[in-house]
Amino acid sequence: MLDLESLYSANANNMKKSVIRELLKLTGQPGIISFAGGLPAPQTFPVEGLRAAADKVFRERPASALQYGTTEGDTELKDQLIAFEARQGLKLGRDDLLIVSASQQALDIACKVFLDPGDLVIAGRPTYLGEIQAIQSYRAEILGVPFGNGDDGFDMGELRARYTTAKAAGKKVKYVYVIPDFQNPTGICWSLEKRKELLAFSYENDLLIIEDAPYREIRFLGEARPSIFQLDQEGEARGNVIGFKTFSKILAPGTRMGWVIANPELISKFVVAKQAMDLCSNVFTQAWVAEYLKTAAIYAHIEQTRALYREKRNHMIEALARCMPSRHDLTWTEPEGGLFLWIRLPSFIDTEAMFPAAIAEKVAYVIGSAFYFDEPERNAMRINFSYPSLEQIDEGVERLAGVIRTTIARDGIAHDGIAGDGIARGS
Amino acid sequence: MLDLESLYSANANNMKKSVIRELLKLTGQPGIISFAGGLPAPQTFPVEGLRAAADKVFRERPASALQYGTTEGDTELKDQLIAFEARQGLKLGRDDLLIVSASQQALDIACKVFLDPGDLVIAGRPTYLGEIQAIQSYRAEILGVPFGNGDDGFDMGELRARYTTAKAAGKKVKYVYVIPDFQNPTGICWSLEKRKELLAFSYENDLLIIEDAPYREIRFLGEARPSIFQLDQEGEARGNVIGFKTFSKILAPGTRMGWVIANPELISKFVVAKQAMDLCSNVFTQAWVAEYLKTAAIYAHIEQTRALYREKRNHMIEALARCMPSRHDLTWTEPEGGLFLWIRLPSFIDTEAMFPAAIAEKVAYVIGSAFYFDEPERNAMRINFSYPSLEQIDEGVERLAGVIRTTIARDGIAHDGIAGDGIARGS
Repeated sequence: MLDLESLYSANANNMKKSVIRELLKLTGQPGIISFAGGLPAPQTFPVEGLRAAADKVFRERPASALQYGTTEGDTELKDQLIAFEARQGLKLGRDDLLIVSASQQALDIACKVFLDPGDLVIAGRPTYLGEIQAIQSYRAEILGVPFGNGDDGFDMGELRARYTTAKAAGKKVKYVYVIPDFQNPTGICWSLEKRKELLAFSYENDLLIIEDAPYREIRFLGEARPSIFQLDQEGEARGNVIGFKTFSKILAPGTRMGWVIANPELISKFVVAKQAMDLCSNVFTQAWVAEYLKTAAIYAHIEQTRALYREKRNHMIEALARCMPSRHDLTWTEPEGGLFLWIRLPSFIDTEAMFPAAIAEKVAYVIGSAFYFDEPERNAMRINFSYPSLEQIDEGVERLAGVIRTTIARDGIAHDGIAGDGIARGS
Repeated sequence: MLDLESLYSANANNMKKSVIRELLKLTGQPGIISFAGGLPAPQTFPVEGLRAAADKVFRERPASALQYGTTEGDTELKDQLIAFEARQGLKLGRDDLLIVSASQQALDIACKVFLDPGDLVIAGRPTYLGEIQAIQSYRAEILGVPFGNGDDGFDMGELRARYTTAKAAGKKVKYVYVIPDFQNPTGICWSLEKRKELLAFSYENDLLIIEDAPYREIRFLGEARPSIFQLDQEGEARGNVIGFKTFSKILAPGTRMGWVIANPELISKFVVAKQAMDLCSNVFTQAWVAEYLKTAAIYAHIEQTRALYREKRNHMIEALARCMPSRHDLTWTEPEGGLFLWIRLPSFIDTEAMFPAAIAEKVAYVIGSAFYFDEPERNAMRINFSYPSLEQIDEGVERLAGVIRTTIARDGIAHDGIAGDGIARGS
């Protein structure tokens, strides 16, 4: 047999399997209520509309939709996206857009275009696992910045301090990666003030910002805040912001369709990188999604998705309030959008160590430590509310609360002498 | 403005735009007959069959086909591919397969998994442009091996000599990249003997072979030869061969659907790399193509495609014989399959320098030098016969012969004192 290890690249030897994907294999067991996935509710998929749009492509332009396409992307789809983004106030031309095979490909292209081994990307502590994996696969590193106490964006003092230290140590920082709208995993939405502050920071330090916005349209409470891309465009327009968008949460992830917005020089560089990666994204799907967008049905569809997730989120928050032990050190975020919330547990609980007990009780979550590039915090978990039914939310939260209660009863006394619900809840 | 150059990675600074894609922009001008593309004939797309298959997915499994999928790929599609490959004599299990977004993604994954900057890949002189681009984007290099005189595979003496020199110079050679069936750009098909010889070479030197086989099923003359993958499987079964397959030439490139076959350990490594690149390939298209394959219509479809391309290829060969200047140093390959043939011109002709004259005469080809990683030969061109109509083939070859005749008349006298058709043709 070949000695494969000796043939692998240094990057390949640094790649890690997705913790979530490995955990999900466990959570597929019968009877388990899983809050672990990141899946949209399949009831939201507009099957009939998508079917009609596909049929139209087969009837009207099969020859081009089944042929090779340009790396840049289908012009009709681009024009539809320009109109879609215009409703949010963005002014875009075709050269400001690149069609990609959903956001993960955009994350990969960005790594390829910007990162040499050892380079730094500024990102949240915690942050999206797929970005951590992408960065690891280039042997680059994350300079993690914790969120401020208000859960309204980075702790900006920490950002500045850590950036200054890294620069002084001779590190190259290439970009800031943020998910300002309903972050994965925490559900945090950045305040307008912190968005502006981050943009100013990028201007001061000549840094790019990658604004990953898969959940931006899934706001079910409160008022939309301008994207950082928009703040740049309507302000100094220096072009420091690259936006990543996807149809995965607003239409259907199976389309694997997303788009990058940026200044034309950057788009052009991304195009060259993408050419060598896959020549072009799925041509049929581009035509198909363009046809669906032409019907304008997506706007009502997004409203329906919002309504469904609002109901599920409210149901989950109520179940948590009802079932969870009441302690100042047991809290959760109450997101105004997206698919996830984040539960912070007492510091003596390690959610990875607790995971087998949860599986035994037939409930699953994602361990919080999966979302840290280094020095993970171990007492948190990510909870998804978009996929489970209302009944599963009730039952699953009850099971989860039971597991936590048992863990506190067992480990809490040793730690702080308090078992159970002795202290008023903080959330 | 940001200084983007300072932010790009070393790899990004080594990326080159596709020469073909840049040339194709010129060839889109009205009235030009283009032999430059690499497009299948759109008449071959089985539109009705694909439409029925898509409709079936919408009716029978929309929830899973529109949801996220596994990185490994759709199980139903894998099972169909196992049956498809079994007809060629391959024995595969699900763990031997990875679904990818067509072959270019497979090429990219292979680069990512195996190549550090400065590493070498053995490949033909010339070879597929997309592989050159992929390798450049990792700052790896190609150790080019010329084809032997019989146009039946590498010059094996040259392979051994160049490999020995590279090893002596301390270079790491990671794999051999070959397209044994109807190579792009030359149309060359490897003899059985040379396939065996290359496999033995890979055993001797503990090297992987990547066998890229996009045209394998498009054989319209002669007898099929076993793939190198098959020779390994039916022989020593050491697992040195990785096969890349795609639906681009046998179904429709717009599906962007391909598959990798290899031993499970390698597949598993490719899966980890792909996870960080795009999570999974287009889920809907996987289900859709699986449904199409279930009808078994693809076998008759491939027969029809073969018949069409056989006719076009014969027509082109006849037109070349009729129109081209008759010289021993003006020859072309006569492929038994695939989409391309390769014209070798007198050594004093530079097909890049001649390109504007061809465009002026409203005919286009791909300059041969595009298919060399280094030290290109400049007196060749790639000609596509799958896309143009029979009428366009007649007219285009006549125009092309005129351009070549004019160039020989102008430059040939200075070079060898012969203008025009003084010498018997060698092809």
